[in-house]
Amino acid sequence: MTFLRNAWYAAAWSSELADGTLARTFLDEPVVLFRGEDGKAVALADMCPHRFAPLSLGRIGGDTIRCPYHGLVFDKMGACVHNPHGRGVRPSSLSVRSYPVLERDSVLWIWMGDAALAGATPPPSFAFLDKDGWATIRGMLGVGANYELVTDNLMDLSHAEFLHPFIAPEGSAAGIRYRAEQDDDRVAAIHDMPDQPNTPLFELLLGKTVTRIDGYANTYWEAPANMRLETCATAIEPADGGRAEMLQAHLLTPETETSTHYFWAISRDLCLDDQELEAMLRFGIDAAFRNEDEPMIQAVQGRMRGRPLMDMSPALLPMDEAAVRARRILARRIAEEQKARAVEARDEGQPAAHACAAE
Amino acid sequence: MTFLRNAWYAAAWSSELADGTLARTFLDEPVVLFRGEDGKAVALADMCPHRFAPLSLGRIGGDTIRCPYHGLVFDKMGACVHNPHGRGVRPSSLSVRSYPVLERDSVLWIWMGDAALAGATPPPSFAFLDKDGWATIRGMLGVGANYELVTDNLMDLSHAEFLHPFIAPEGSAAGIRYRAEQDDDRVAAIHDMPDQPNTPLFELLLGKTVTRIDGYANTYWEAPANMRLETCATAIEPADGGRAEMLQAHLLTPETETSTHYFWAISRDLCLDDQELEAMLRFGIDAAFRNEDEPMIQAVQGRMRGRPLMDMSPALLPMDEAAVRARRILARRIAEEQKARAVEARDEGQPAAHACAAE
Amino acid sequence: MTFLRNAWYAAAWSSELADGTLARTFLDEPVVLFRGEDGKAVALADMCPHRFAPLSLGRIGGDTIRCPYHGLVFDKMGACVHNPHGRGVRPSSLSVRSYPVLERDSVLWIWMGDAALAGATPPPSFAFLDKDGWATIRGMLGVGANYELVTDNLMDLSHAEFLHPFIAPEGSAAGIRYRAEQDDDRVAAIHDMPDQPNTPLFELLLGKTVTRIDGYANTYWEAPANMRLETCATAIEPADGGRAEMLQAHLLTPETETSTHYFWAISRDLCLDDQELEAMLRFGIDAAFRNEDEPMIQAVQGRMRGRPLMDMSPALLPMDEAAVRARRILARRIAEEQKARAVEARDEGQPAAHACAAE
Repeated sequence: MTFLRNAWYAAAWSSELADGTLARTFLDEPVVLFRGEDGKAVALADMCPHRFAPLSLGRIGGDTIRCPYHGLVFDKMGACVHNPHGRGVRPSSLSVRSYPVLERDSVLWIWMGDAALAGATPPPSFAFLDKDGWATIRGMLGVGANYELVTDNLMDLSHAEFLHPFIAPEGSAAGIRYRAEQDDDRVAAIHDMPDQPNTPLFELLLGKTVTRIDGYANTYWEAPANMRLETCATAIEPADGGRAEMLQAHLLTPETETSTHYFWAISRDLCLDDQELEAMLRFGIDAAFRNEDEPMIQAVQGRMRGRPLMDMSPALLPMDEAAVRARRILARRIAEEQKARAVEARDEGQPAAHACAAE
Repeated sequence: MTFLRNAWYAAAWSSELADGTLARTFLDEPVVLFRGEDGKAVALADMCPHRFAPLSLGRIGGDTIRCPYHGLVFDKMGACVHNPHGRGVRPSSLSVRSYPVLERDSVLWIWMGDAALAGATPPPSFAFLDKDGWATIRGMLGVGANYELVTDNLMDLSHAEFLHPFIAPEGSAAGIRYRAEQDDDRVAAIHDMPDQPNTPLFELLLGKTVTRIDGYANTYWEAPANMRLETCATAIEPADGGRAEMLQAHLLTPETETSTHYFWAISRDLCLDDQELEAMLRFGIDAAFRNEDEPMIQAVQGRMRGRPLMDMSPALLPMDEAAVRARRILARRIAEEQKARAVEARDEGQPAAHACAAE
Repeated sequence: MTFLRNAWYAAAWSSELADGTLARTFLDEPVVLFRGEDGKAVALADMCPHRFAPLSLGRIGGDTIRCPYHGLVFDKMGACVHNPHGRGVRPSSLSVRSYPVLERDSVLWIWMGDAALAGATPPPSFAFLDKDGWATIRGMLGVGANYELVTDNLMDLSHAEFLHPFIAPEGSAAGIRYRAEQDDDRVAAIHDMPDQPNTPLFELLLGKTVTRIDGYANTYWEAPANMRLETCATAIEPADGGRAEMLQAHLLTPETETSTHYFWAISRDLCLDDQELEAMLRFGIDAAFRNEDEPMIQAVQGRMRGRPLMDMSPALLPMDEAAVRARRILARRIAEEQKARAVEARDEGQPAAHACAAE
């Protein structure tokens, strides 16, 4: 499998990275994250170029990290700045790859492709996560499955009735008016749910006196796998029962071909200081992803046995349209990127494979 | 490895399948078993054709099973009879493979090949398992080895002296008069054991006053790996010490190339109501298979490291004859079946591999 | 990967082999070790030629071992001397490979290649392990990494400052005067450490009153991976503070491509009867190898993901010279051996691969 490389991926929530190192694998590449003296996050390949020890087991010293095996010291750009042995020679090959990192909306974003291209592309905006007047619950989950299977899950919310009793009551799937929308390389999965029974989740926000709602849940995807999910319930019985909106971020970063870092966050603009509600929301939502979605997605991957989804000729239904569009866009983008790399490699007189490895 | 497909395999003991689903893999294919409203067993591919979720995690509703992920409902023949989404469209590709199932002699048999051929071949008969005047102990075991290695074990019982002190005392191997018999595609391994010391096992049935016996233990094999084992001890010291017969079923169903569902049962026509004897028999026999045979067969498979037995040039001995004949018959039957599939595929203008996958 | 076959490998410490069998895998081949009636060690392929059961699960009877599955009995040379079945026929194919074994310096050495060549090559001498006036601590460790990575570790001791605080204090790496020496196919890594602070390890032997020492630690390697390590500290503050020498054996035997049997021993000629010192030395040294080296070497192997070290273009430093020379000698020796086998196979009119398997 090939990943889209010239893209921003969520590497961590800002709060995950404090004093020590954070070792995490992205796109099958081990990376070590740490903060320099100015507090800015640094990402380096987590492998010393000398004898391939994981730098993440080493020691941070100000703006540098020391290899745990032979003590070579690297700076924030990955250059070896100290060799404690003999005359301290530092051959030019003594450096590790550094990855562009950006911190925004309390997300640490990492760029896994050509560093020269990172500046031209901002990471997607999830401003609501840190917005005044909003309260955000953040979570993270390791999913034992390919990230596109998780995208599929989020681009077709009709599964909620069958997997998530807390979120969608029995019979709710039939009330969904689904359509896919595409704007350039962005895809939206629109789920309109007019005149529905209230759900346990929205009862937490609107109260149990609200019995019927107009709802929607719309997922806005962009490549590789960053999604904004807007959910909303407006009371219709009683008509003055209020309106509750939740804006969500679902950020998927491939760890390997068969595992995914799943960062999720849910922001609300009501009941901001209700600690009990907050605890119930956090528990209920985390449980839905961890105990209901994740095992199902992992079971699906088990059944697929490494075969690509489309090679298995799935019997696609109308509600798969947005997910399928997202898959096609991503496949095209990856193919384009591969082609550009091959051209570049040829122009430099190198085989394409070599160019990849040299990155 | 290729399995014989047009054959009945033991899928479960009847008693294993009650209200819920039973998920089991046969010949490397995941299958879900459940009972319809009439109590008859149903077997479907355990993978929804939509998004490949395991149906066995879903909900049974009368004669149908509902996919746990998106709620598609399938009937006993595998046809999708309900799509709870949108306008409820059901494309013709929305069906899962169903497998012929037969229940007989308290065994649930499954046919893993061409369903059109199932009717012409009855499953093997093990009528003694449910016969009046007989008491049967049933057991089941997962073996971490290829099923043919278990067949080898059962077609040469001379190993009992070395593995099973409860069944065969020291020195008993030398007293076995072994011969292989073949009748068409059936093979028997005849072990005559005249004038032997009584064994701990038969002392349970004949009493310790019987010190010498004429015994036999004959395994009757048919493809793919279903065996009847007839064991008998007739007292000769004292001559009026009685006679004890035990008829056994040993039904092996490949789970994968390297693991086997091993169903065993032992029927006796004496001491039917002796609960203590029953408990000792059950414990002693289960322990022999679970603690003595299984680890040895698994160790053998470990040493073989995935190589086919015959490619390793085993130093075969006379007592291997029946097992080798069984292996040869099975190999020929599989080759014939593969050839027939290839011809069929060619006549239909399809590549053979495609025909397999389409099955 | 190919191993050097015509070489002596450490199979066990003499004391490990007593009454029972010892099952161990060397060079990816399962071997069973046991002692005959004269106490001499025997090594046979741990796989019965009949049905491939591990002989190590069987029973020793004087100079023979009995297969646990069907009771075939093999002598010290691997010949089948008893078949308990039928007429007791023993086809000529009923034998297992035996490996030359030598016991010397309390090491059991095994020869994994052509037995005819074993006599011409003595195993390396580690006479100090059993020498009068010396006390030896022996240990053993399973390392989850390729043996050459462990050789690398032992041929460049500059890592001690970073991994082993007990052995080398902070700042000690800078004081090492390193050079590689080569004498034919032997390589030495010389680490002179003049005028250094005493170390926790040598404080145990010299006392804490000795504050500065002249030290050295020299590793003498020969193929495939047997090393003598001479360490010494001579007091310079105070000048009459004494001298402590420790001679070490580090014997690495590949279990598989990715795991190693690591036998180590440390001999000293002072404080012979100090039990407390002995306990502290044993604990400190075992902990350094087990808790500090092994996890690091395993982590390195994890990062390498099966790629050969040199294919990964490591950024080599001067202190890698001895390790690199050792790797080159070993690679050449293996290539020469492979070539000789190919020639031999051709002269015998057999394909080379066959010749290997027949060995």
